Amino acid sequence: MLSFPPPIQKLIAELARLPGIGPKTAQRLAFFLLAQEKAALLELTGAILAAKDKIRYCSTCCNLAEDTACPICRETQRRHDVVCVVQDPRDVAAIERTHDFRGLYHVLHGAISPMDGVGPEQLKIRELLSRLNNGSVREMIIATNPNIEGEATALYLARLIKPLGIKVTRLAHGLPVGGDLEYADELTLARALENRREM
Amino acid sequence: MLSFPPPIQKLIAELARLPGIGPKTAQRLAFFLLAQEKAALLELTGAILAAKDKIRYCSTCCNLAEDTACPICRETQRRHDVVCVVQDPRDVAAIERTHDFRGLYHVLHGAISPMDGVGPEQLKIRELLSRLNNGSVREMIIATNPNIEGEATALYLARLIKPLGIKVTRLAHGLPVGGDLEYADELTLARALENRREM
Repeated sequence: MLSFPPPIQKLIAELARLPGIGPKTAQRLAFFLLAQEKAALLELTGAILAAKDKIRYCSTCCNLAEDTACPICRETQRRHDVVCVVQDPRDVAAIERTHDFRGLYHVLHGAISPMDGVGPEQLKIRELLSRLNNGSVREMIIATNPNIEGEATALYLARLIKPLGIKVTRLAHGLPVGGDLEYADELTLARALENRREM
Repeated sequence: MLSFPPPIQKLIAELARLPGIGPKTAQRLAFFLLAQEKAALLELTGAILAAKDKIRYCSTCCNLAEDTACPICRETQRRHDVVCVVQDPRDVAAIERTHDFRGLYHVLHGAISPMDGVGPEQLKIRELLSRLNNGSVREMIIATNPNIEGEATALYLARLIKPLGIKVTRLAHGLPVGGDLEYADELTLARALENRREM
């Protein structure tokens, strides 16, 4: 480091702040960037700032959007009576990849986690409730993560929304398809047993 | 990807161009960047562009420099009669970390590699020769990489510079310190045998 001029040291330090990028990788990336044409670097830095400047939350589902409505809420042929609640915009992308869900989404932007100081008021739950008010939603699928925070959030939402007369469902737990029973953890296996289906 | 707005897709695509960054990591980095404050992003993008704008080659040794002279050439107490020739500025940093070399450097910015269309004229060899002209250099240590391209470059430089009456040396090949003889490859072991020293 000492024999690099300050602008390179600064660049390496900035890159090392990125998640999963250690000092060695940061150095490799810094030298890669230095070797690029100025135009390519302007593309990269422009993309970083443009994403930050242009992206906001969809006014309906709180998914990431460039306009007031996200691409999914703007699709006219989707079902409006089923809403799938997820923690993160990446979860929307994951469910969309299944091509199996034609309803709408609601992105909470997190999960209830008292340890991290995240309570219901930090999540997009108020926005969810105001959506449910008009009576068009008949089922809410809770697709929060299958971990402590996700389960706590699911329970909280179920208690809040069931009284509104909306059917509340949760993604199934069980063995992953293509997985090996031997390698499944005990909790997953226990849930798979509990939720066994008649063939 | 499809359910992300275009600015995020663009950002993911730009990040995925970086070496060692696959599409999954690019997506993770993109969402990390989106969650940062604008000020932090300006620091990062500023560091990228500043490094590109401010860094040039040292007029003496072709190492990276912010001024016409690099930090090492500006150190007054270094020996001027020994020059260590390396392929890359990172090799300078590696040798500096040993605290064992007090001479100067010369950075070639590559190695001869006909396969990649890199000949001697693409390297900073002309700059090296003009440095050697004033007669103050008595030894040149060739520290190019111990691979085909590095060896070819070392041979080329030795043939070019020995006739000038300058002692030309090459870094020793042998077993890595702390390594396990069993795991040394045959070539390294053969070189270690060949260069054995009396105890």
